[in-house]
Amino acid sequence: MDKSFFDREFEQNLPRFLEEWKQLLSFASVSTDPAREPDCLACAEWLKSHLEGIGFQAEILPTPSKPCVFASWPGDPKKPTVLFYGHYDVQPADPLALWKSDPFKPELRDGRLYARGAQDNKGQTFYFMKAIETLIRSKGLQYPVKILLEGEEESGSSGITAALPAWRDRLAADVLMVCDTGSISAERPTITMGLRGIIRVEVKLSGPYHDLHSGVHGGLVKNPAVEMAKLLATLYTPEGGINVKGYYDGIRTVGPADRRFVEDFPFDPGEYARQTGAQPVGGERGLSPAERRGFRPTIEINGLHSGYDGPGTKTIIPAQAFAKLTSRLVEGQDPDRCLALLIDHLKAHAPEGLKFELAQHGVGGAALSLTSESELIKRTKEVLDGISGRETILMWEGASIPIIPSLSKVSGGEPLLVGFGLEEDSIHAPNESFSIAQLKSGFMYVSMMLSGAI
Amino acid sequence: MDKSFFDREFEQNLPRFLEEWKQLLSFASVSTDPAREPDCLACAEWLKSHLEGIGFQAEILPTPSKPCVFASWPGDPKKPTVLFYGHYDVQPADPLALWKSDPFKPELRDGRLYARGAQDNKGQTFYFMKAIETLIRSKGLQYPVKILLEGEEESGSSGITAALPAWRDRLAADVLMVCDTGSISAERPTITMGLRGIIRVEVKLSGPYHDLHSGVHGGLVKNPAVEMAKLLATLYTPEGGINVKGYYDGIRTVGPADRRFVEDFPFDPGEYARQTGAQPVGGERGLSPAERRGFRPTIEINGLHSGYDGPGTKTIIPAQAFAKLTSRLVEGQDPDRCLALLIDHLKAHAPEGLKFELAQHGVGGAALSLTSESELIKRTKEVLDGISGRETILMWEGASIPIIPSLSKVSGGEPLLVGFGLEEDSIHAPNESFSIAQLKSGFMYVSMMLSGAI
Repeated sequence: MDKSFFDREFEQNLPRFLEEWKQLLSFASVSTDPAREPDCLACAEWLKSHLEGIGFQAEILPTPSKPCVFASWPGDPKKPTVLFYGHYDVQPADPLALWKSDPFKPELRDGRLYARGAQDNKGQTFYFMKAIETLIRSKGLQYPVKILLEGEEESGSSGITAALPAWRDRLAADVLMVCDTGSISAERPTITMGLRGIIRVEVKLSGPYHDLHSGVHGGLVKNPAVEMAKLLATLYTPEGGINVKGYYDGIRTVGPADRRFVEDFPFDPGEYARQTGAQPVGGERGLSPAERRGFRPTIEINGLHSGYDGPGTKTIIPAQAFAKLTSRLVEGQDPDRCLALLIDHLKAHAPEGLKFELAQHGVGGAALSLTSESELIKRTKEVLDGISGRETILMWEGASIPIIPSLSKVSGGEPLLVGFGLEEDSIHAPNESFSIAQLKSGFMYVSMMLSGAI
Repeated sequence: MDKSFFDREFEQNLPRFLEEWKQLLSFASVSTDPAREPDCLACAEWLKSHLEGIGFQAEILPTPSKPCVFASWPGDPKKPTVLFYGHYDVQPADPLALWKSDPFKPELRDGRLYARGAQDNKGQTFYFMKAIETLIRSKGLQYPVKILLEGEEESGSSGITAALPAWRDRLAADVLMVCDTGSISAERPTITMGLRGIIRVEVKLSGPYHDLHSGVHGGLVKNPAVEMAKLLATLYTPEGGINVKGYYDGIRTVGPADRRFVEDFPFDPGEYARQTGAQPVGGERGLSPAERRGFRPTIEINGLHSGYDGPGTKTIIPAQAFAKLTSRLVEGQDPDRCLALLIDHLKAHAPEGLKFELAQHGVGGAALSLTSESELIKRTKEVLDGISGRETILMWEGASIPIIPSLSKVSGGEPLLVGFGLEEDSIHAPNESFSIAQLKSGFMYVSMMLSGAI
């Protein structure tokens, strides 16, 4: 079976595919909204039935929170097992007023299907299912396949996280395939080679019972806003790095084979500045943007609040100051250790005379970093090079998908992260969409991989 | 005329005094509220008539904003002229629900009169008028007296500030008497020996057009919240001082004669901490609280805001960060020069890659600092020592009343700041009040001073 076979199959079946895809998108499976619980469960049931229709043995796996859909197809037990992970829940649709069509009544306009979840992650899960269906029908599926679809990716993955340890045998696999990422452009398919880990800390400094007059009390008491600024400033080196002792210990730097991909990563500072409004001059001096984002940790202040926020002047010493911090971690950094180092630093530098409190804090997940020397990555790159006719991009991403490293660890599957999302899909925003062209790229990729390239 | 004479005068006239005081307090002269403009003007007219009734030549002086009431009594031109400054406007009364009686229908309960302005500043202006009236009636007034009552002290003093330069001749005086301050307790009358100046600066750092994903962009762009913390931290020395070059140049330190009063100032750190909730460990190390507050400048952050302020985590790089700063200045610091130094420092330390903007900024006013070696202060202290039977407190205050240094400069009058306000008066708060005992202390003080102690 070659590229032209799958191309034909996609085009011939497209009308039916579109109808089924619309059905999947019609469930308002917003996991964060308790009122949408029935929609979430109905969506899980639809997926179970749909996978059974394709030939899978499927079941609903309960968790302490939303259930997962699990399905398997035996295949040749001597061949490597593929575990596919996706999610059937979606982001909330609001602000509804900004949608041009109902987010849960999918509408095709100019070759794009508009609906909440059209891409993230129902669209990308759908092309996987359609490729698998095509392979089973044409007896081209080479590998045992397991499918795990969670229902809370958009709201913290608490259910699957709690249930995972008990599913070790059930999920055992050689490859963990995930289609929940994007490509840098429609012409350049992209393998996501890394994800950063994440930890979070919220700090509170409290002084007086209530705001004090800054004239009457200025010079008598410590100002929580001033002390917070001083405390947070201690976290950074003058060179843009992190000043927490031991934070960089053992981190994986760019290997020789990967260096080419990191340096070749297409990044146009002028274009970046036009798109975001900000010059890409953050992070550590002397490193390329791709290296700073993919291979270096950060500590970001996500929120910093103290005192007066209205017009004009209010001459107060604020009673309190708050800072919300998250730190992105890279391969080699143990999240629990980094959290402890960060907390120790903050405590050690906390000002006398004010009350120092840690509000919520914890570990979001570990980092993941692959290498271009992996045989699986090499074969995937060949498949994608063949589909696009151009060299595939290898991207070490700066964001986090905490469940992937956990799932890889539990299942034993080597992560394979390829997705066809594009900036223009507007995921998490009004008028989310996914084009038929993107759906086809995904279908081709999965079909080619599972017909022999794993 | 001695103490007992004034004591008798006060007690005999008290019923009438109370009726008149209630009339003055019945005007809702809230200067910040445009709807209260007629109440303000009516209050000014009442004061003009009242002063005329006492024997003054009085007029309403227009300004670009609310008018002032001006009145004069010729006296002996060879004697020093006293200029009294007060204000007839009051703070807004809300939250109204917390008042036990109508803020503009004065009510006497347990020896205290409850109303907005009962103390600040109508009550303290009223005892001045009643003392003057008594002195004129008993032919005991020794000095030429001028009275200037402004109508916008609670909302920025813009009218009087604009008009002052043109009033130089009219206001010419030897002593500038102000009764708009407080005493540390009912038993310890207090001379306010100093006020700090104030300047203000608002800083804004802008990065991306909107908040960015902290994973996707972390390490690429500078985080405005992080850079704001770093920028603000540069303003301070590790010892709690100010790190702005030249900021301390030329400031007046505590002189030998004043040292005793500064060191003797009653300050109980434990009591302070119980009342405010904060330990008095701010400001520069190694200096007493009274010195830190009265003789040293501060830079306070009054507001600091960037990014997310809700529950939980939001993984963003905030688009902007804001900081509102005010700096209290002491005698010897030129406010315009300090503002320029502060702005220069902020600009010099502003991060590359972000947009630095000064929002509103400006000079509030200069500092004022008196010395216990002044003959006027010595005589005033004797009068107050005699009234209370205890040694009078000399207090170098940390707050600012910017109009006083300006008025002193324009009129040539040596400032004399004595007031009988107490913490329990709840000025600027619901249920403001002033006791008959405090009214009497003020009456005695003004009577004794103006019958020969100036």
